[in-house]
Amino acid sequence: MRVRLRREATPRMKDREGRWRTVIEGVKPEIDGGHFAIKRTVSEEVVVEADIFTDGHDALSAVLLYRRESQPQWTKVPMEVLVNDRWRGSFRVTELGRYRYTLIAWADHFKTWRRDLAKKAEAGQDVLVDLLVGARLIEEAGRRASKEEGQILRKWAEDLRADAEPQSARIRLALSAKVAALMEKHPDSRFATTYEKELAVVVDREKARFSSWYEMFPRSCVSEPGRHGTLKDCEARLPYIASMGFDVLYFPPIHPIGRTHRKGKNGVPSGTPTDPGSPWGIGSQEGGHKAIHPQLGTLNDFRRFLDKAKEHGLEVALDVAFHCSPDHPYVKEHREWFKIRPDGTVQYAENPPKKYQDIYPLDFETEQWQELWEELKRVVLFWIDQGVRIFRVDNPHTKPFPFWEWLIQEVKQDHPDVIFLSEAFTRPKVMYRLTKLGFTQSYTYFGWRNTKAELIQYFTELTQTEVREYFRPNLWPNTPDILTEQLQHGGRPAFMARLVLAATLGASYGIYGPAFELCENRPREAGSEEYLDSEKYEIKHWDIDRADSLKEFIGRVNRIRRENPALHNDWSLRFHSVDNDQLFCYSKSTPDVSNVILVVVNLSHYHTHSGWVELDLDTLGLDPERPFQVQDLLTNAYYLWQGSRNYVKVNPHSVPAHILLVRRRPRTEKDFDYYM
Amino acid sequence: MRVRLRREATPRMKDREGRWRTVIEGVKPEIDGGHFAIKRTVSEEVVVEADIFTDGHDALSAVLLYRRESQPQWTKVPMEVLVNDRWRGSFRVTELGRYRYTLIAWADHFKTWRRDLAKKAEAGQDVLVDLLVGARLIEEAGRRASKEEGQILRKWAEDLRADAEPQSARIRLALSAKVAALMEKHPDSRFATTYEKELAVVVDREKARFSSWYEMFPRSCVSEPGRHGTLKDCEARLPYIASMGFDVLYFPPIHPIGRTHRKGKNGVPSGTPTDPGSPWGIGSQEGGHKAIHPQLGTLNDFRRFLDKAKEHGLEVALDVAFHCSPDHPYVKEHREWFKIRPDGTVQYAENPPKKYQDIYPLDFETEQWQELWEELKRVVLFWIDQGVRIFRVDNPHTKPFPFWEWLIQEVKQDHPDVIFLSEAFTRPKVMYRLTKLGFTQSYTYFGWRNTKAELIQYFTELTQTEVREYFRPNLWPNTPDILTEQLQHGGRPAFMARLVLAATLGASYGIYGPAFELCENRPREAGSEEYLDSEKYEIKHWDIDRADSLKEFIGRVNRIRRENPALHNDWSLRFHSVDNDQLFCYSKSTPDVSNVILVVVNLSHYHTHSGWVELDLDTLGLDPERPFQVQDLLTNAYYLWQGSRNYVKVNPHSVPAHILLVRRRPRTEKDFDYYM
Repeated sequence: MRVRLRREATPRMKDREGRWRTVIEGVKPEIDGGHFAIKRTVSEEVVVEADIFTDGHDALSAVLLYRRESQPQWTKVPMEVLVNDRWRGSFRVTELGRYRYTLIAWADHFKTWRRDLAKKAEAGQDVLVDLLVGARLIEEAGRRASKEEGQILRKWAEDLRADAEPQSARIRLALSAKVAALMEKHPDSRFATTYEKELAVVVDREKARFSSWYEMFPRSCVSEPGRHGTLKDCEARLPYIASMGFDVLYFPPIHPIGRTHRKGKNGVPSGTPTDPGSPWGIGSQEGGHKAIHPQLGTLNDFRRFLDKAKEHGLEVALDVAFHCSPDHPYVKEHREWFKIRPDGTVQYAENPPKKYQDIYPLDFETEQWQELWEELKRVVLFWIDQGVRIFRVDNPHTKPFPFWEWLIQEVKQDHPDVIFLSEAFTRPKVMYRLTKLGFTQSYTYFGWRNTKAELIQYFTELTQTEVREYFRPNLWPNTPDILTEQLQHGGRPAFMARLVLAATLGASYGIYGPAFELCENRPREAGSEEYLDSEKYEIKHWDIDRADSLKEFIGRVNRIRRENPALHNDWSLRFHSVDNDQLFCYSKSTPDVSNVILVVVNLSHYHTHSGWVELDLDTLGLDPERPFQVQDLLTNAYYLWQGSRNYVKVNPHSVPAHILLVRRRPRTEKDFDYYM
Repeated sequence: MRVRLRREATPRMKDREGRWRTVIEGVKPEIDGGHFAIKRTVSEEVVVEADIFTDGHDALSAVLLYRRESQPQWTKVPMEVLVNDRWRGSFRVTELGRYRYTLIAWADHFKTWRRDLAKKAEAGQDVLVDLLVGARLIEEAGRRASKEEGQILRKWAEDLRADAEPQSARIRLALSAKVAALMEKHPDSRFATTYEKELAVVVDREKARFSSWYEMFPRSCVSEPGRHGTLKDCEARLPYIASMGFDVLYFPPIHPIGRTHRKGKNGVPSGTPTDPGSPWGIGSQEGGHKAIHPQLGTLNDFRRFLDKAKEHGLEVALDVAFHCSPDHPYVKEHREWFKIRPDGTVQYAENPPKKYQDIYPLDFETEQWQELWEELKRVVLFWIDQGVRIFRVDNPHTKPFPFWEWLIQEVKQDHPDVIFLSEAFTRPKVMYRLTKLGFTQSYTYFGWRNTKAELIQYFTELTQTEVREYFRPNLWPNTPDILTEQLQHGGRPAFMARLVLAATLGASYGIYGPAFELCENRPREAGSEEYLDSEKYEIKHWDIDRADSLKEFIGRVNRIRRENPALHNDWSLRFHSVDNDQLFCYSKSTPDVSNVILVVVNLSHYHTHSGWVELDLDTLGLDPERPFQVQDLLTNAYYLWQGSRNYVKVNPHSVPAHILLVRRRPRTEKDFDYYM
């Protein structure tokens, strides 16, 4: 058993500077002892706190240092003390890429001297010697200063020593703001403690934090039965998707599909020659992860499609699914990347006793793991070269963590605008680890959080704990793999309510359509979350113009999202109690509370519910003494409310939620233009 | 501004092994990212937990490794999985000194194969190729095994491949316990992940965890007025102290006392020639920190006293107070260890506008800090050479943290039995930091925790959070500096109640006597916590035989402590609710609940209170269906109780507390020796 030794040094006198007296500990944010970066988007703030103290009674100075990782020069921000030895400082990240931050703190002899001098002077003590001590400190600072400022400091030192002057005048100089300011510029930080770590920040573009996804199988983009949709056909679908207000269009894999063990309708093990196969069965004679399924079109068609999508405000996200069909070119060309069974066959995927013979996993324990990693990186770079900047990664939890950590850092080093969404529907610690190591966003357990208590608990964890520093949730009410029980049984009200929850609890969310807007909710069998006649195994011809489509409702919700910056973040989420467990109330706001959105959702999809909301007025920036208006952005109804306790009633069969814009000041006579 | 750079490595492919797929994180205990050691006493257990997981669905193996720090060889303990990727393992420390522990874990291909084979066999699938896969794994293990075991493994591999045998027999062999056991002995841990840190444990002797301290000014150990007590006189006091059941006798400084600016009665700035001075005014012509105050006796007397104390079961603790009187030899011989003011005088201690001209602090920012550190270490080693093993350190928070970290580690390297008690009455983070860096025990805020809510909150923090891994509380109801308001106003019942609280909430506690047992409670002035006519500044002649002395009560409490192992630990503390806020109920127990002590204290020192206790029967190891007996060890009263709800009544004017021994089985007819 190999054991790498890494012993912390026992403190030996010769190896240390015993005069670094100041302690910096309890630094936040700091993920797993600084092993992982925190995440921000451009123009967001990083607020750093730490416990900082020293022995004895010296006054302290503490500075937060930050820099872009690529630049050696630190920018310094003075920190302020809160209470109980806690200090705080902050900076704003302005550029894509990686930043670093650390702290420095020291016992500040000038500050200590100034504080004590003031006390002694106030007590009327003779401070002759103290003035001489101060003169020495100021003189020393002069030696650290520029020539010009040094002269000023030396002059002050002389003045403090000037016996001819009365003590009172010298004390006034000693305690003056100008002396303090210049001394702060040239502190004696010889014995300063620098925090032992340089903590990292990954700065992404805004879409990493705020995005509205629409998933669609491109081959199903034509409404006429019998035809395989093409990328050209998809162009015609763009206005439809854009009209619903989405900004990311995500395609399941668009690569050639294997034929061996190809799955049939409803995923039966052997399909017929007419079955189109699952898009996740990647690779055939026609190519692998860098090729496009011939029936969809050509690489040129794809590039053209990206441009067209862009014209509609849509960015295309591709699926990264690192496994192969038995017909994938890798299987012949790089047999060493697969596990070979003793009978000479390639090991297929299995979850005993189930076998998935249409899928060959890559063997990340191969001796050639480095070549494999490089090739997979080339796959991602290939699509980046075509213009793709968003990737939804299929089952990342079935490939090694070190691989993802390396891949994402490698890619983002040159392309800091790339976004990776982790599709890790797995155990919580695994899901979190993937985002710690670099995934930009992640799927969540939102689909299975239905009651008010479940939602509050889960979203408190996601938005009010350290998790939020690295985990950006992307909420999906449905996916091609997940038709939740709520949607199966709750009908149209459930689709509407889950949409509102996803779109307002999450700054990022997505739906799998047109199944979603058409309220498709038939499971393959009772107790299953698979769709009946799943689109994964057959081509669909959706009637997107059906009168009962939710497309307009979705469009309205997305417009509300776009127009209200309160909904562009997750961290401001706060819950407000309602005396009815079926009514769920929460708010989001901008930091300056200039935009405040209050949401009330009826979680029962069957009955009208009413109740009294108990608002946390402080959070909403509301004055308990003044009335305020709430405007339902879904229905345009207006309500006049006052104080924390207000009545709500929600009928799931019309609209199962309120999305209320809080208007702090209802019109009064003061709004008359002739009111003086 | 100097900035030490320590950047975490960006993972580069060439520097890493990409096949270390297993993650080890969330390790507990681990103090500040492994920067500090946890503490245990000999024979205690270290329970280690961690989140351990890998990608995909492989079965895992995890091993906890530990060793004495001085020995390179690890001992291995298999870890067990709990839930949600949490694993646990434990080991027992058996020797004084430092231990290290770390973890190793890997995706275990044999375990995975065995698990999957069982499922396939159960489903009746053909497993021919699987048996060949297993044969290969077993054959490979054979190469890692001894010659003999290698032969066995190779034979099994052959048997699994034996076409002639029916599959069922080969499956039975494959799944057999003997194969599993031998395979576990020779795992394939090529790609094992070793946790990146080797965490430290400091193992102390039992007294670090369980100790009863008595503080006494040796010069006040004679009852006849007018005489300065000597170490010889102190010998005569030993039976008295031992009769109260203490095991540590702590002396304030016993060094020569300075004369310059010597303080007078009640600490007035200038004393008269007849004032004996404060023992903390250390150093005179007669010597400094390595000398004994001549009026107390000689070094020989001191060594003799240590022996005599030992005969009475008492270990002597000395005070370490690293500062000097103006007359200390260091002031002449090592002027460079002090701050010199511009007028050439030595800087005295101050807390502006207050001046303490009788005390010169050492300047730890001196250029000669290394010489200073070495000298202070020699002071401690000097007293260790005389036989002292326990030190109470005066105001450690006014000397640099790195100094203590170095000093304590240096001393304990050669003398792992030495105990350092930190007298850091300061802010919480500073107090905790000192114990993290090495102090064995610490004073606490116990003196100022009076209400039930305060006590529950504070002792939950001390005994049920990570704090307990490094902070061992030592509870003092009084000290020569602290006469709490409770004692000033609560009279004798307060002294008794606070004693019981200290002695049962804390496995370590102490009192400053004879002031305590004689219920001395007059403050210097209203609002002050200083004693009137404090013993710090004058010699006292206590009448220890006074009829109202608490000495017998204290003796009884200490006997209960000694006889009941439940009270030898802090971690088992649990609170039980009482429907009366003046009654405070808690329990302690041994891990096997063979000894359970339940304490009920009346926190009001004025009125009799009664109420219903709601016991957590599970914690107490009690069956709700059976009656149990509680015996009050203070009064010998017996009560028969049943179930969780029981009545208590406590009169502070007789005995303000119950210390109840829980007896699980009252006598019944089954105890008749003729009952069959």
